[in-house]
Amino acid sequence: MKVSSRLIRHLKLTKRSYGGVSTGVINGKRVGAMKLGVAYYPEHNKREHWGRDLEQMKGAGIERVRIAEFAWSRMEPDNGAFEWAWLDEFMALSMEYGMEVILCTPTACPPIWLVEQHPDVLPVNDEGRRNVFGARQHRCYNSPSYLKYSLRIVEEMAARYGKHPNAVAWQIDNEFGGEQKRCYCDHCRAAFQSAMEAKYESIGELNERWGNVFWSMEYQTFAQIKTPMKYTADLSLKNNPSLEMEYWRFCSDAIVSYCSEQARHIRKHNDGAKRPITTNRFSLIWGDNVRWPDLMRDMDVAGIDLYSEKLHEIAFYADSNYSLKPGASWFIEYGPGVNNLRDGMLQLQGRGCDWMTIFKFKPFPFGQEQGLQELVTLTGEPTDSYRVLEQWSAGPNMVEESRDAMFAPSGVGMYYHFESSWAYTISLWGAQIHHRLHYPNYVIDTVYKSLYRENKAHRIVFSPDNLEGLHTLVVPLQIVHEPALEDALLRFAEKGGRLVVTTDLFQKNAENVYLNDISRFYVEVFGLSSFIAKPLSEEPVQIRRSYGKGQVLLVKKDATLAEWESVVNELNL
Amino acid sequence: MKVSSRLIRHLKLTKRSYGGVSTGVINGKRVGAMKLGVAYYPEHNKREHWGRDLEQMKGAGIERVRIAEFAWSRMEPDNGAFEWAWLDEFMALSMEYGMEVILCTPTACPPIWLVEQHPDVLPVNDEGRRNVFGARQHRCYNSPSYLKYSLRIVEEMAARYGKHPNAVAWQIDNEFGGEQKRCYCDHCRAAFQSAMEAKYESIGELNERWGNVFWSMEYQTFAQIKTPMKYTADLSLKNNPSLEMEYWRFCSDAIVSYCSEQARHIRKHNDGAKRPITTNRFSLIWGDNVRWPDLMRDMDVAGIDLYSEKLHEIAFYADSNYSLKPGASWFIEYGPGVNNLRDGMLQLQGRGCDWMTIFKFKPFPFGQEQGLQELVTLTGEPTDSYRVLEQWSAGPNMVEESRDAMFAPSGVGMYYHFESSWAYTISLWGAQIHHRLHYPNYVIDTVYKSLYRENKAHRIVFSPDNLEGLHTLVVPLQIVHEPALEDALLRFAEKGGRLVVTTDLFQKNAENVYLNDISRFYVEVFGLSSFIAKPLSEEPVQIRRSYGKGQVLLVKKDATLAEWESVVNELNL
Amino acid sequence: MKVSSRLIRHLKLTKRSYGGVSTGVINGKRVGAMKLGVAYYPEHNKREHWGRDLEQMKGAGIERVRIAEFAWSRMEPDNGAFEWAWLDEFMALSMEYGMEVILCTPTACPPIWLVEQHPDVLPVNDEGRRNVFGARQHRCYNSPSYLKYSLRIVEEMAARYGKHPNAVAWQIDNEFGGEQKRCYCDHCRAAFQSAMEAKYESIGELNERWGNVFWSMEYQTFAQIKTPMKYTADLSLKNNPSLEMEYWRFCSDAIVSYCSEQARHIRKHNDGAKRPITTNRFSLIWGDNVRWPDLMRDMDVAGIDLYSEKLHEIAFYADSNYSLKPGASWFIEYGPGVNNLRDGMLQLQGRGCDWMTIFKFKPFPFGQEQGLQELVTLTGEPTDSYRVLEQWSAGPNMVEESRDAMFAPSGVGMYYHFESSWAYTISLWGAQIHHRLHYPNYVIDTVYKSLYRENKAHRIVFSPDNLEGLHTLVVPLQIVHEPALEDALLRFAEKGGRLVVTTDLFQKNAENVYLNDISRFYVEVFGLSSFIAKPLSEEPVQIRRSYGKGQVLLVKKDATLAEWESVVNELNL
Repeated sequence: MKVSSRLIRHLKLTKRSYGGVSTGVINGKRVGAMKLGVAYYPEHNKREHWGRDLEQMKGAGIERVRIAEFAWSRMEPDNGAFEWAWLDEFMALSMEYGMEVILCTPTACPPIWLVEQHPDVLPVNDEGRRNVFGARQHRCYNSPSYLKYSLRIVEEMAARYGKHPNAVAWQIDNEFGGEQKRCYCDHCRAAFQSAMEAKYESIGELNERWGNVFWSMEYQTFAQIKTPMKYTADLSLKNNPSLEMEYWRFCSDAIVSYCSEQARHIRKHNDGAKRPITTNRFSLIWGDNVRWPDLMRDMDVAGIDLYSEKLHEIAFYADSNYSLKPGASWFIEYGPGVNNLRDGMLQLQGRGCDWMTIFKFKPFPFGQEQGLQELVTLTGEPTDSYRVLEQWSAGPNMVEESRDAMFAPSGVGMYYHFESSWAYTISLWGAQIHHRLHYPNYVIDTVYKSLYRENKAHRIVFSPDNLEGLHTLVVPLQIVHEPALEDALLRFAEKGGRLVVTTDLFQKNAENVYLNDISRFYVEVFGLSSFIAKPLSEEPVQIRRSYGKGQVLLVKKDATLAEWESVVNELNL
Repeated sequence: MKVSSRLIRHLKLTKRSYGGVSTGVINGKRVGAMKLGVAYYPEHNKREHWGRDLEQMKGAGIERVRIAEFAWSRMEPDNGAFEWAWLDEFMALSMEYGMEVILCTPTACPPIWLVEQHPDVLPVNDEGRRNVFGARQHRCYNSPSYLKYSLRIVEEMAARYGKHPNAVAWQIDNEFGGEQKRCYCDHCRAAFQSAMEAKYESIGELNERWGNVFWSMEYQTFAQIKTPMKYTADLSLKNNPSLEMEYWRFCSDAIVSYCSEQARHIRKHNDGAKRPITTNRFSLIWGDNVRWPDLMRDMDVAGIDLYSEKLHEIAFYADSNYSLKPGASWFIEYGPGVNNLRDGMLQLQGRGCDWMTIFKFKPFPFGQEQGLQELVTLTGEPTDSYRVLEQWSAGPNMVEESRDAMFAPSGVGMYYHFESSWAYTISLWGAQIHHRLHYPNYVIDTVYKSLYRENKAHRIVFSPDNLEGLHTLVVPLQIVHEPALEDALLRFAEKGGRLVVTTDLFQKNAENVYLNDISRFYVEVFGLSSFIAKPLSEEPVQIRRSYGKGQVLLVKKDATLAEWESVVNELNL
Repeated sequence: MKVSSRLIRHLKLTKRSYGGVSTGVINGKRVGAMKLGVAYYPEHNKREHWGRDLEQMKGAGIERVRIAEFAWSRMEPDNGAFEWAWLDEFMALSMEYGMEVILCTPTACPPIWLVEQHPDVLPVNDEGRRNVFGARQHRCYNSPSYLKYSLRIVEEMAARYGKHPNAVAWQIDNEFGGEQKRCYCDHCRAAFQSAMEAKYESIGELNERWGNVFWSMEYQTFAQIKTPMKYTADLSLKNNPSLEMEYWRFCSDAIVSYCSEQARHIRKHNDGAKRPITTNRFSLIWGDNVRWPDLMRDMDVAGIDLYSEKLHEIAFYADSNYSLKPGASWFIEYGPGVNNLRDGMLQLQGRGCDWMTIFKFKPFPFGQEQGLQELVTLTGEPTDSYRVLEQWSAGPNMVEESRDAMFAPSGVGMYYHFESSWAYTISLWGAQIHHRLHYPNYVIDTVYKSLYRENKAHRIVFSPDNLEGLHTLVVPLQIVHEPALEDALLRFAEKGGRLVVTTDLFQKNAENVYLNDISRFYVEVFGLSSFIAKPLSEEPVQIRRSYGKGQVLLVKKDATLAEWESVVNELNL
């Protein structure tokens, strides 16, 4: 691991210098001190307070500020009229103070002139109402006007600051797809029809694979497909789960594609890897509508925002982030309660987080997020959180404190599958509406929680290609059948891996349709000829089988936390 | 009873032949074995699996399949382009296999071409939004386009299969008014105005009877009346209860009239009574917006769908169905949990059900109702329900098993009044918003439940003309005053009947307006000069009176189950 | 007090004549008997029943009827076609019966012809849907058509009855802003833009004060400001709290201005103070969207409607009403449960209410409020409430019964601040979404409840100018900083007053934005240099300080009822 020599060198340095150590892995253990940043809004604050604020940040050991993610109206107050003086000035001042800057593109907040000149920038909701101006994320990712003007401001910004000596990284947009997950406008409709035509080629093929014969939902042409607006009825009636599945995929893809476009525009003006690019995913509490592996593919760093006090949840996100980009994991917004801020930070650091950026330096006096307490109060007093950072930056942190309990990769993986989650959320009937099965909650608060150990880092697996080095893999609620995953699981067990799957495994296909034939896995591993329709026993583990050199456990799809813990005990994890 | 000779003859036959016995009444007791059917979707299944599936159905003793109720897009893939080959083929094959067919008209699911060519087919909700294509029941019963094209497919279908030797019955549409209860479009508005003009003749008369002087809601012309769209307000504000009452009546009438029109078109091509026609009402859990007695008037058979495991609820629906059409009661969709399927079937059979059609043979892999377990799994394994049917068909069932406990008509009737239910649901103030008083829940789960006995069949009375043969009549929550019912109740008691009424009896008129004068019943029976404004005591029975040769009990309108049970005990029911 | 001589005179008269005594204050104590009125609807009743009904009212000691507040369609059945005969007749008949009349303007219910000829009369909700005709309050206070036609009917009515010898008072409209609090139509939008331009002068000033830099919400012109329609998003996203605050203020102002316009039109035809004018505010249970002090400014009498059985709540509203207009406090609709009607009336009387008008004489048989029990039943029988009034009118009531426990002004004031309430309701984050902090509920059911004594009347203070004569002032949840109030509080304490404030005191400004600098009060009284960010202790009283000759207590902003009671005990209130 190339970082280790640097680490060893740093271990000989003074305590204070741990702030500069990157996270790395030595002899299979992750070590190193996480560095600190904070979100700041120069445009909210008087020019004469900037210096005082930067000074105060440094007092807590903060080395970076993240800025500008909502400042479009200050960068371009009117169409094509750019104003960079204020930002030039802040960049210069922050450099003076030795405070590095993460620059954010401001595209989550289209300004009033854009909305008024091109109302089709605004998304349309599932009842056909076009959104209004006046908060954030009021943009359709398929609107040509939005794409044109937002990429223009991105490129202007990149051209101006792409090589600025104090700009150390880029954040694209802010929490893509958070509050505005899916738009139902005519631009989206047309793009969706094209995407479906490209994928299915004939409308007959689409009808067949979506089961549109059901309720006579068959289309004659691709042009008849609409965005899945809310079906009006006196009792609940939903759209075809296959249509929804494809639309969710389409909306995730639109976000990913737009994010990549921003990255491409920034890279034109960015001198290589020196200034890594990322975007800040929101945590799954707010939905898992954007597929992380896709979104992170073109990013240099895995970025995520997290607001949680629960240690197992913090661990899950830290492990996820590290799994997506080992050695480049950033928590871009982190805002835990003050009571366990230090505990959370130790979890992040131990699980490979390089940078943690606190959200935020100071409360907003105005606007929709006004009034919360942060590092300092509105009148400038340091809060308890400030003291925690101060202490953190002054000490050796985990490296020294936790020498004997250093975090180690556990060799255990847990699979997370966005489309299995969607299949559960979209579908209406039977066990699928059981609250406990809402995929992300269940996977994090039940399955991962049973695996959680304070000082062991698991791998969160998002792809069949990432099983190398694991001795155990847990695959919960993997209802969607993917042939490549099926192959990989069989190979994993064959070679000696221990595999834990649940009774809903591989029952649906990628179109959110149940399989009519049992999948190969069941036949080869369990010798079954049909899916398991009802519990075989009351035990959490329904079947235990050897397979090749390995072992496969089939667990009830609705096992409780206690039941999962018994499975984990049985496996000595 | 004309069926008895046939029954006697069958009683001499082998056990297996009970399958062919119709339900009947012998010496006041209902006997006979219920026959079995199942819903099947040839259009969902590969041609080469039809035979295997039919064979498997027969293995469980199933003698009929119900088909085609959602297959419009397969019968008429484009405007006027009819395709019958697949259905011809299935009809022929099912005949080969000795499996009778119930044919359904596919009108609940207008296909895409109809919706695109005539968007006014789609209903408009109470906020003015026109529905989208993509589920079911997306049709306005007053849309001329819907009427034209849907009656055309009905007649085409009837012409083709009306005399087919293997077609044994017709089901019209599917669960009329289930998910889409009321449309608020301009077609409906115009039709409603005409209906009101025909009924009230002058707008002054309507204003007077609806109390439109209240809040200055008086109209000047019939053309000013709108469908009762949701009133927007920051606090709850509803439409005039009289307007709503008439609109609910109008929407029920529109469904009834459309159903009768379908029947008339089918009968043109149907050779007499040999092929009975019905429609499958949904159970009251989903609303009681369509008046059953009206809907069943033109039907040959009382058809209903039921999904319930509660024995008293199953009994209520079975008794209702039999009461509507004695000797022609069919449960068209029945889908209880596997645990008490046999118990439920015994209840149905004992209460006069001739045919029970299980919903459904196999789970849907796709679409909005995907994934539930049925008679066989998606991969074809028989489920527990399949085994229950198998056993049922092989045995003599109730006739033998329950010889000593045979179901008998109890001589007890319970009145069900749709408009009293509507009066409670529509109105806003006072006791009427109390959850327990939601009419159908209260009447079934409290009043009927207190009357329920495993082996006694009650009469559910829907009309004052149907009291003959009862010794006791319970009339709960009959808030609407109908002079003909008042007369009938007085006569019933006078001649010796025992009558149980509740304290809200006859307080409103048919326009959903409270009476200003006490109704005759109170004066003659109880000697009262005003309605009972507050409880007379804490006892469930507020007043007991002799009347003629009979007896009248006045029960609190919100008596609990335990209180109703005490009333039932007092009457030795 | 000028009423006292009249009172003394009346005290010498017979018991029955107490009915004629106005409420007054003798030696600092409030005494006198409250008079009785009732709401009646001549237009709902047959002409031949009017006399009988008036007679029956008199039998209960009722001396006034309130009429006509929903009768626009009867006064003006078509545009400009006025019909007064029925009202002339009722006025004459009521005079014959010695029953005084409170006349109401019927403007809360625009008739169908107005709505059809000028659809812009109808308000638009926050999703952009224009309301329908068919209930009440379907009017936009900024619609030119509504203003024109509604002020015409007001003036016609005033011209006809302004000097009628039996018309003793006017009620304007009915419960302004109750069900329809805010409209979002284009008229409102234009008026709001003008109001904002008049107030802020430059758009830059508005952007600055609203913090529109947050999320790039900056406007370029006033014409870009929209009414704050609901922001569509998949997660909750609200409008800028500053925009909402100003819109709430604007909507309150529109109602106040319209009410004053009605008063001005009536006064043209009203001979002086003989016929006082008021409007009936609704109680805060339904919202506090209209600022009472503004609405009452042009009224001669403080009018309010109340439906409550809780004695502390009745007391709060009675104290509020008296505080707004000492000596002219009317409860225009009062409708308590029968069980404690007399107790409630004693509270009203003791707290200075002159007239109590029961809502209503008889139940409505029809319409949206049909079926409740009132003074008499639909068939005319007196109810328990009727008996209570009868007894009340026959006796000396409180004057005699409660001689030793006569109500006395307590010298304690409680501040009620509409905009602090709005700040809490509008804002989204942190402690502000805590249910308990919903301002009116907390202030009445917690703070006032702790102060409530059966026979002490408190002053509810709505303005810094109204502290004279108080020894103690409680100022709960006063989050909005008003310099004039700050001055007044400091002066109050300095001169020896005891002041109780809560820890959220003066943290935001009038634009609903948090202050960046601590307010003077904290510095001068508590010697603090920053706001209190977290509890100083678990005690309800966080700080006790002397200030001048007085004392200041700082109480936790979320103190419970028990905690408030301990504060009240400490102060010996």
